[in-house]
Amino acid sequence: MEDSLFPRDITAAQNIANSPPPLDPDPNLLEVRDWFKMQPKLEARFGQVLRQSIDEVLDGQRTGRFNIKDLEKTEKTYLGTKVEIIARTEFNLGRGNRMDFSISGHDVDSKFTSGDNWTIPREADGHICLLIKANDLKASYQVGILRIHDTLLNLGANRDGKRTPSAAGRSAIQWIIPEGRLPENILLTLSETDRDAIFKAGTSGQARTNELFRRVQVRLVNRNTVLTVARQDDSLKRVRDARHHLRNEGIMILGHQKQHPHIARALGLRVPEKGSWIAIRVACVDSLDSARKSTRISGQDYAVWEEGDSSVPAPAEY
Amino acid sequence: MEDSLFPRDITAAQNIANSPPPLDPDPNLLEVRDWFKMQPKLEARFGQVLRQSIDEVLDGQRTGRFNIKDLEKTEKTYLGTKVEIIARTEFNLGRGNRMDFSISGHDVDSKFTSGDNWTIPREADGHICLLIKANDLKASYQVGILRIHDTLLNLGANRDGKRTPSAAGRSAIQWIIPEGRLPENILLTLSETDRDAIFKAGTSGQARTNELFRRVQVRLVNRNTVLTVARQDDSLKRVRDARHHLRNEGIMILGHQKQHPHIARALGLRVPEKGSWIAIRVACVDSLDSARKSTRISGQDYAVWEEGDSSVPAPAEY
Repeated sequence: MEDSLFPRDITAAQNIANSPPPLDPDPNLLEVRDWFKMQPKLEARFGQVLRQSIDEVLDGQRTGRFNIKDLEKTEKTYLGTKVEIIARTEFNLGRGNRMDFSISGHDVDSKFTSGDNWTIPREADGHICLLIKANDLKASYQVGILRIHDTLLNLGANRDGKRTPSAAGRSAIQWIIPEGRLPENILLTLSETDRDAIFKAGTSGQARTNELFRRVQVRLVNRNTVLTVARQDDSLKRVRDARHHLRNEGIMILGHQKQHPHIARALGLRVPEKGSWIAIRVACVDSLDSARKSTRISGQDYAVWEEGDSSVPAPAEY
Repeated sequence: MEDSLFPRDITAAQNIANSPPPLDPDPNLLEVRDWFKMQPKLEARFGQVLRQSIDEVLDGQRTGRFNIKDLEKTEKTYLGTKVEIIARTEFNLGRGNRMDFSISGHDVDSKFTSGDNWTIPREADGHICLLIKANDLKASYQVGILRIHDTLLNLGANRDGKRTPSAAGRSAIQWIIPEGRLPENILLTLSETDRDAIFKAGTSGQARTNELFRRVQVRLVNRNTVLTVARQDDSLKRVRDARHHLRNEGIMILGHQKQHPHIARALGLRVPEKGSWIAIRVACVDSLDSARKSTRISGQDYAVWEEGDSSVPAPAEY
């Protein structure tokens, strides 16, 4: 018995040796990884690729949706295609011979999931996959690469014959962006109460936009969020009109134009870029005897409103 | 024998009577049809819904594609979803209880095909389907409604259990738009030679845009076509720059601004609306002794160039 075990163990070891050793250095894989790592602003750009892909498929302006879980099955499938298209454009990637991309001369297939694991089709066997995973709720994403091999996949297949990377497969992933910041989907982060108030049935697009800036303050709100709330195509006009409607409540909405970036900086806020805004409620302060950050508009000093401050209207022009 | 046939025929007739008679007036179906027929500018709006859906999924600006046949399978499937989303927005349709739309209080499912026939899932049995078919090559589309019934479908099913309307089914369709005009996809209509010249590999977005207006004249070119050719996001700038590049070849590009609509009308051309342009090669004419339509720009009369005319540069400012 003891003797017979030994040759069996050797056979097992040889079987493993016959299959490509997934944890050994794979020069092609490392070239693909290094190509990505050399791209300037890689994390920010990949984050924007994913934000844009998710937002386009949600199509908030037409559907009012902001949560991936509300997508239909065909839309979830298509989301992977959209990620592939936008990543190809952003990183100017060519097409592979048989796979989605050609990177550093190597065929690479693109696989996206908004869930926990990727589904890998049989055709990917032996090929390098760019594995992309996004979690919109956590505002995070990961990008890694893996050369697919039978020993790295779970046994069970779905009805299309697709399988998922096993624990061994996931630990063999070469991470390109192990933990990326996905630009925030602000509507996902709101409380149920705030969300219900904003999306109250029967209100107009303008009323919903007003409520958005009433409830979301000191945070950057982007164009897509306004479009999703307003369900109209002119986000700029909705924001302009919201400024008038909210003035008497002391609310200012700062954008990227005129004195707005200056005001934002003076008040210690993030500075909105084109296509984003930041709302704040203001209070009048005496700049001479206040330790608070303030800005002078039409001869009056304003700071961000705090508990105990009086209510004042926002400046008429700024 | 003669006697025995009679009862058998009666039984057959009763069987038919037990199943809903598809060709009899179906009041719900007629209500849905009439609701659509009452919508103002129905044909133009539905045509625009389909144009927009096809263009968004082709995503020409990022992919350079302009032909549905170049879509991947997941994209073709998604195209039906996009049509549903855009139609819902355009006609302000509510959701049905179990189907895509609620129209005149009736559940209606949306089914789109860019092929010859629709694929109908089992769940649609007994329900009203809005059947939409688009042919981008022929610039035509059809919209009709049909209450799905087993007797109206071909026997064979695909592997998802979906079946297609049979000849009897197709002839039972109540047409809402029997033959609609789909706004033209101009790149599809070009000759192979023109298309190859425009999309010549290695040229810049600007060079491709110039070639587009060199080869496509006296026809309206829309924003999506320019984006697809230029693969860049500022179509207005590409057109403005093309005006300068093509001036010495005598080519003018008219848009919707300044004197352009006036010039277009004077020359007997279609008048571009916002987001569309029309290019023409011009010649100098003497307006007094010419029967040709002409327009005066900076003291000089111009007509659309004809064989035999001299070559002149286009006006510097117009």
